[in-house]
Amino acid sequence: MCEVTPSGTITSVPGFHAGAAQSGIRTKNRLDLAILYSEVPCVAAGVFTTNQIKSSPVVLSREHLSRGRVQAVVANSGCANACVGEQGLADAREMAQLVAGKLGIRPNDVLVASTGVIGTRLPMDRVQIGIRDVELRANGGHDFARAIMTTDTNPKEVAVSVDVGGTEIAIAGVAKGSGMIHPDMSTMLAFVATDASIHAGFLQAALKQAVDVSFHMISVDGETSPSDCVFLLANGRAGNDTIGFDNGGVFQQALSEVCLHLARSVARDGEGATKMIEVVVEGARQQSSARQAARTIVSSPLVKAAIHGSDPNWGRIVTALGRSGAEVMEEKLDVYLNDINVMKQGHVVPVGREKLQASLQNSTVSIRLHLNLGDGTATAWGCDLSEEYVTINSAYTT
Amino acid sequence: MCEVTPSGTITSVPGFHAGAAQSGIRTKNRLDLAILYSEVPCVAAGVFTTNQIKSSPVVLSREHLSRGRVQAVVANSGCANACVGEQGLADAREMAQLVAGKLGIRPNDVLVASTGVIGTRLPMDRVQIGIRDVELRANGGHDFARAIMTTDTNPKEVAVSVDVGGTEIAIAGVAKGSGMIHPDMSTMLAFVATDASIHAGFLQAALKQAVDVSFHMISVDGETSPSDCVFLLANGRAGNDTIGFDNGGVFQQALSEVCLHLARSVARDGEGATKMIEVVVEGARQQSSARQAARTIVSSPLVKAAIHGSDPNWGRIVTALGRSGAEVMEEKLDVYLNDINVMKQGHVVPVGREKLQASLQNSTVSIRLHLNLGDGTATAWGCDLSEEYVTINSAYTT
Repeated sequence: MCEVTPSGTITSVPGFHAGAAQSGIRTKNRLDLAILYSEVPCVAAGVFTTNQIKSSPVVLSREHLSRGRVQAVVANSGCANACVGEQGLADAREMAQLVAGKLGIRPNDVLVASTGVIGTRLPMDRVQIGIRDVELRANGGHDFARAIMTTDTNPKEVAVSVDVGGTEIAIAGVAKGSGMIHPDMSTMLAFVATDASIHAGFLQAALKQAVDVSFHMISVDGETSPSDCVFLLANGRAGNDTIGFDNGGVFQQALSEVCLHLARSVARDGEGATKMIEVVVEGARQQSSARQAARTIVSSPLVKAAIHGSDPNWGRIVTALGRSGAEVMEEKLDVYLNDINVMKQGHVVPVGREKLQASLQNSTVSIRLHLNLGDGTATAWGCDLSEEYVTINSAYTT
Repeated sequence: MCEVTPSGTITSVPGFHAGAAQSGIRTKNRLDLAILYSEVPCVAAGVFTTNQIKSSPVVLSREHLSRGRVQAVVANSGCANACVGEQGLADAREMAQLVAGKLGIRPNDVLVASTGVIGTRLPMDRVQIGIRDVELRANGGHDFARAIMTTDTNPKEVAVSVDVGGTEIAIAGVAKGSGMIHPDMSTMLAFVATDASIHAGFLQAALKQAVDVSFHMISVDGETSPSDCVFLLANGRAGNDTIGFDNGGVFQQALSEVCLHLARSVARDGEGATKMIEVVVEGARQQSSARQAARTIVSSPLVKAAIHGSDPNWGRIVTALGRSGAEVMEEKLDVYLNDINVMKQGHVVPVGREKLQASLQNSTVSIRLHLNLGDGTATAWGCDLSEEYVTINSAYTT
């Protein structure tokens, strides 16, 4: 339905500019500070982490977003600006002010996002230099995507176009995230832009729905970050009939596809990951229990380690299901590993071990369970657990 | 208060005999089948996994325990007898019958426990040979402890004696567990025996209370096994005044100490572990939230990996606290790493990084948080996350 833009990026959306700089917040010679700018003020929506420990940028951006109007986003990697007392909020405010000064807009119209080490102050001298050095360009989206990376091994971005009531609109998004990924009401940083004209109320509802089936259904390590946020900015440049609840179906679907693409990219690029895991749960009593079951299985360290070693130890999948909180009747349960039926109505299906092991070598491993209890269905994405995950995370700040 | 018996084991309790055999259930040349036998019928109590997927031995032992009278326990490693359909229950029943026949007691008086691979049938021919070969001895407890090990690197056992109203009674326990450890209502296999005379109702209550502060407060990997169970058998041989709710204080404390010793042994021997982690949460609004917070922190893969690398990245501790569900006010929070204060009322305390790193080399790492919100306190135990955990679990059945 919607067409993917080749080499698409956040600045593929008309009216958006971006740029990035090397400010040396944590390491030298890498882009670590980025600005996204809209030529005109946007209606905007956001979802934020539910972690009770919130980074200062999350606190500030929620405040600014409550006005519903945004014209720029500044983001940095290398330091999360979290757990540093009230100084953190002062530093986040200063970032918004510096960007507003540079662009000639109001500080209230700037959202701030920071990601990286928790518990250290932002080096504001370097942040100042970075904000000064950013050059905004109509094709600066790729630099923006690279600047927000931490342990990510590749940038995550996508752009699509879709026909809405006879007008072509663009939607594009960029995300970062690799570790501390178990989003709860949102994910690590993700930014989505569109040139569609959209009612503010619908925008927030549409973003929530898209996040529910995408970022909320991925997990790398069961950890929820204090910095999680997803922003959606709509500048209205496309000149379409304004989208609202009555005519929002096509936009909703395209937005969900953009978020799904980004979420899957985050799952595939989980810290140390060598394989992506997709868990489909069908036939659950309710949709909520299907979601619970899919997320628990995709987060299970034992399932993840088995898949890393191509070990068809599917008993661990059933065990994770059993502790998920979803209702389970063992005697009704069907389990498929890469479409090979290994359990049918609670009984082991004899399958050649070699066949299973060979199929687990794939770069994407699919786990499908049918609970045969109702109509609840959900899909979650994650990645395998490798020795490399431990290596990365045993020496992150050192 | 209670005295630890040197080289104590489950058969340190008068009237209990044990033995083990090499039956070749999964690998040859290792003890894998064990029997614990009491000369007289015992009053007994048990707590079991809350995983909805339950192993067949758990189903059978609950049924047998409901009669409140037990005289023997048979346990095997190498195969969990879980997720194999109704054949599993038939096999578990046959194990109880074989042991009853060997000992001249009733099948209903035998508890069964199995641990190992999930989703494969017990090789009953080998189980039969194993049960036949077991020789029960008054000092057979150490063999029992070794026979129930899977990925454990050492046996876990302890015996104490304590004066109860002028009579010396013995309590001893044995446990196994190294991976799939996040007990919920109980843990992996643990067996506790005492020669005290105890009212059945108090016995169950005392076991539950002991398990709540011990096995329920450890985590290796956040996974709850379908085989978890803790059994407590009391044969009454000590001839003490029967212990009940009115005079149970001393027994309760000694029983909790036995369970704590075993639980800490399991945590320290977590798969791939090189360090033990102790998390103390104080000043929580309620005790339940203190427990939640302590367990979430001790289970956090990022906290565990940082401690593995002696990386003083305490922001991850605060982040795990924030997602635990316990109420947190960042501005009231105090955090100590090995008694070094790193956060005071939400502010970073400047501490030399080298000092912190050096202290994290200890084989036990202590994390202490004061939430300054109320009186709730809890302690949880776990272990670091090493590359070795992944290596062990990426090739468990292969």
